Amino acid sequence: MTSVDELVAALPDGVVLTDPDGMEKYRFDWSRDQTAGKPLAVVRAEDAGQVQTTIRWAAAHDVPVVPRGAGSGLSGGSTAVDGGIVLSLERMNAVEIDTACQVAIAEPGAFNAEVKAAAAEHGLWYPPDPSSFQICSIGGNVATNAGGLCCVKYGVTTDYVLGLDVVLADGTLITLGGKRIKDVAGLPLLKLFVGSEGTLGIVTRAILRLVPQQGARSTLVATFATVRAAADAVVTMRSTMRPSMLELMDRPSINAVEDYQPMGLDRAAGALLIAQSDAPAAARTAEMETMRAACEAQGAEVFVTDDADEGEMFVQARRASFPALERRGSLLLEDVGAPVPLLPDLLDAIGAIAAKHDVEIPVVAHAGDGNTHPNIVYDAGDPDSEKRARQAFDEVMAAAIALGGTITGEHGVGRAKRGALPDQLGPDVMALTRRVKDALDPQGILNPGAGF
Amino acid sequence: MTSVDELVAALPDGVVLTDPDGMEKYRFDWSRDQTAGKPLAVVRAEDAGQVQTTIRWAAAHDVPVVPRGAGSGLSGGSTAVDGGIVLSLERMNAVEIDTACQVAIAEPGAFNAEVKAAAAEHGLWYPPDPSSFQICSIGGNVATNAGGLCCVKYGVTTDYVLGLDVVLADGTLITLGGKRIKDVAGLPLLKLFVGSEGTLGIVTRAILRLVPQQGARSTLVATFATVRAAADAVVTMRSTMRPSMLELMDRPSINAVEDYQPMGLDRAAGALLIAQSDAPAAARTAEMETMRAACEAQGAEVFVTDDADEGEMFVQARRASFPALERRGSLLLEDVGAPVPLLPDLLDAIGAIAAKHDVEIPVVAHAGDGNTHPNIVYDAGDPDSEKRARQAFDEVMAAAIALGGTITGEHGVGRAKRGALPDQLGPDVMALTRRVKDALDPQGILNPGAGF
Repeated sequence: MTSVDELVAALPDGVVLTDPDGMEKYRFDWSRDQTAGKPLAVVRAEDAGQVQTTIRWAAAHDVPVVPRGAGSGLSGGSTAVDGGIVLSLERMNAVEIDTACQVAIAEPGAFNAEVKAAAAEHGLWYPPDPSSFQICSIGGNVATNAGGLCCVKYGVTTDYVLGLDVVLADGTLITLGGKRIKDVAGLPLLKLFVGSEGTLGIVTRAILRLVPQQGARSTLVATFATVRAAADAVVTMRSTMRPSMLELMDRPSINAVEDYQPMGLDRAAGALLIAQSDAPAAARTAEMETMRAACEAQGAEVFVTDDADEGEMFVQARRASFPALERRGSLLLEDVGAPVPLLPDLLDAIGAIAAKHDVEIPVVAHAGDGNTHPNIVYDAGDPDSEKRARQAFDEVMAAAIALGGTITGEHGVGRAKRGALPDQLGPDVMALTRRVKDALDPQGILNPGAGF
Repeated sequence: MTSVDELVAALPDGVVLTDPDGMEKYRFDWSRDQTAGKPLAVVRAEDAGQVQTTIRWAAAHDVPVVPRGAGSGLSGGSTAVDGGIVLSLERMNAVEIDTACQVAIAEPGAFNAEVKAAAAEHGLWYPPDPSSFQICSIGGNVATNAGGLCCVKYGVTTDYVLGLDVVLADGTLITLGGKRIKDVAGLPLLKLFVGSEGTLGIVTRAILRLVPQQGARSTLVATFATVRAAADAVVTMRSTMRPSMLELMDRPSINAVEDYQPMGLDRAAGALLIAQSDAPAAARTAEMETMRAACEAQGAEVFVTDDADEGEMFVQARRASFPALERRGSLLLEDVGAPVPLLPDLLDAIGAIAAKHDVEIPVVAHAGDGNTHPNIVYDAGDPDSEKRARQAFDEVMAAAIALGGTITGEHGVGRAKRGALPDQLGPDVMALTRRVKDALDPQGILNPGAGF
C-alpha cells in the first residue's frame, strides 16, 4: 500500500481524487500559473475531522498541503505543488446565522455571497465584498484578509472575524475567539491567522460579525479627462469624508468592459470614478454634493442617481473589469497600494512603466483606499511580450514600495509576488516571519512557497 | 562595575533610576498589586535607540524587562518584578499628525487624550476612548488592544493601528505596516503585537488611523428598576442598531459616583443606561426613538438631550466610576464579557456571586459590547474579606467563560488574570501561545509573568 492509498483508505469514498483528469482543475487558481505542479491527490474534505486526518497524514509523510477554497485567488496562493496534496474545502460550505449574536458561522467553502444572502434573510449584512464575491469563498477571504469595494468605509475581512476553528500543522484542531465582540484574553492569535494565506493552519470554521443591513445608496459616476484628475479628486474627497464606495477605472479598463459587455460607459473618458454614499437622508445628499464638487473641480462631468438599480449597473461594470480583461490576453495581476494622498503618483508611475515597456496596463482601483489593480496584458505566445510584462510587473511593485505602499492590498502574496516581498518588508521582518512560521509549522508542510 | 552600572553608563545621565525611592512609583500600576517586585533599575527611555540599548543589555544579562506606559493598567501588566528592569516609555511622548494621510504618528508615552487633541486641531478624530483616556498612554492602549465607550460603534485599538515600530527581544528594531490603509503583504505580524501586553516586543512608535471628527451627539439616560431590565433593553437595542455609546451603571456604582462627585443621578435606580447616537440629523432622531422605545418597554424613565454639555456630564459620571470606587476600599477589577444576548445572564451571575460571598460588586459596563466591569470591593486589612473577594473574582471569570465569554474584554490578562486564562483558552491554545512566545522571545525576558 502506497502512502496515498493509506490516505484514501482513511477517508470516505469520493473524498480523495487521484486521477489526473479529475485533479486538473485543482492545479490552478485565477492567476493561471502555468508552472503549477502536479499533486499526488486532491482531498475534498467534508468536515474538520477529515481535515485533521489529511494534515496528520501529510505530517507523517512530510507531504506539502495546499489549501483551496473556491480557487478564485489572484496571486497563486492555491496553485498546486508537485507531489503535494490539494486540500479543497469546497464541500464544507454550511452557513448558519445566529441572529441574537448577529454573527454568521460559516464553513470555509461557503461563498462570500452565500454568507451575505443568509445574513440578508435576517436583515443583517456581511460587508466585505471582493469583486468576485459571488464566486469566492470565505476560507479564501480569511486566508487573504480580503477587501473589496465597500472597505473604504466598512473595513476588511479581519475587522469582521470574531472566531476561527483552525487545524494546525500537527493536526490539532483549535478554537480561537467566539461570539463575544471584545476579547483580549491571551495573545491575538485569531488575527495572526487572518491573512496568513494557509501557511499557519487550515481554517475549518469562521464566526463572522454581521451589522445592520446597509441603507439606501446614491451613486455618482464622474468622467475625467485624465487618470491624474480622477485621482486628485479622490484625494480631495478622502480628506474630508468616507464614502461607502470609491472606485476608479481608466480608459483601457472602460473599453475592455464595453467590449465585453456594452454598458454605455464613455469610451473616450480618461478615467471614471464610481462612488457611493449610504449615509442617511440629508447626510447622503451632503456627501454626494461634496463628491460632486471634488469631481467638478477637476473638470469632470458628473452624473448622480438615487436609483438603486441604475447605481448597481455601474458597480457591475466595475466588477466586470476582471473577466473583461481576461479576454484580452494573458494577465499579470497587480494589487499594489499607496497612502491615499500618493495615489496620483502611483498611477502616474504605472503609466510611465507601461509606456517604458510598451505594455498595456489597464487599471481599476479601490481608489478610496489607495489600492489599485494594474493588470498587465501580454501575449503568452510571445516571449518578448511576456518578458516586458514581467519587467513591468516587478517595476510596478517597486514603485509602490518606493511610495511607502504595498505590493498587495487585498489579494495576498501567494506565489506570484513572493520575490518582491523582501523588498517591502526588509530582512528583519522576513526573519521574524520565518520564526513565526517555524514555530507553527516546523516541517513546512502548509502551503510551502506561498505567502512569504 | 556591576551589570547595572554598565546599563547606567550606556545611557545618558538621568535616564536610569536606581534609587529605591525614585523607583517606588514605577513598581505599581492601577491594580495596586501589593506583591509587586523590586526592580534593579528604571529606564526612562528617550528614544528607540535607548530602548534597543536597554533590551540588548537585558538580553545579555538575562534580566526581565517590564515595559510601562502611563501605569494606568488595571490588570497588573506593568507591575514590576524582582530583579528586573522597568522600561518606562513616559518620556517618548511626541505626537505628529499627517493630515494628508489622516494618521497620527505617536510615541508610546503619549496620552490617548494628547493624540485626540492633536487630531482635533485638524478636524480629525482618534476614536478609541478608554475611560482613562486622559491619563492612559498609547503604548498601553496598543499593548492591551484597549477599548472604551465609543467602541460599540467605532471598534477598538487594533482597528486603528496601521503601523508599529517594535524593538524585539534581541534589540532589533523593526517597522511593520505604514501609512497605507490596506496591506496584506506577509504574515499579519502587525496585528500580533496589538494586545500582546509587552510580551513579544516593545512598541516605540505607532501610526494610528484617524477619521473625520465625530458629529453632534444626542444622549439618552434611562433609569431602570433592575439591572436585568436595563440589560434586556440593551439586547433589544443592539438587535437592530449600533449606538455610538451604550453604557450601564448599577445602583452601587451610581451611589459610589454620587458619594464621590454629586451629579444628581437617581440613587434609587436599579440601573442606568447612558446611550448616545451620533448619526446625522433625522437618523439620529430615529435612533434615539428606537433606544427610548427599548428602554420604555422595560419600564424605564427616559431623559433625552441634544445638548452636548448636558450629555457629557452623564458620560463623565460614568467615567468617574473607577476613581469613585477606589475610595470605597481595595478593589479587584474585573473586565469580563459575554456575547451581547447573554449580557443579562452574565449580570445575573455576577449578582448571585456577590450575594453568595457577601461582597459588594458594583458593576459598570460597556453594555453594548457585552463587556462588563464588576469591581469587587474588599477590606485589605481583613483576611476573610479578601478571601471572599478573591473567590468571587475567580467565580465571575468562570461565569463569563461558561457563557462563551471572556475573562478580559479590554484591560488585558496582565498578572491578575493569568490563572484563569487556561480555563478560557484550553491547553492547545495555551501551547500555541507558548510556541509563539518562544519564537519571539526565547529567553523570556519580555514582561515575564504577564499576559499568559
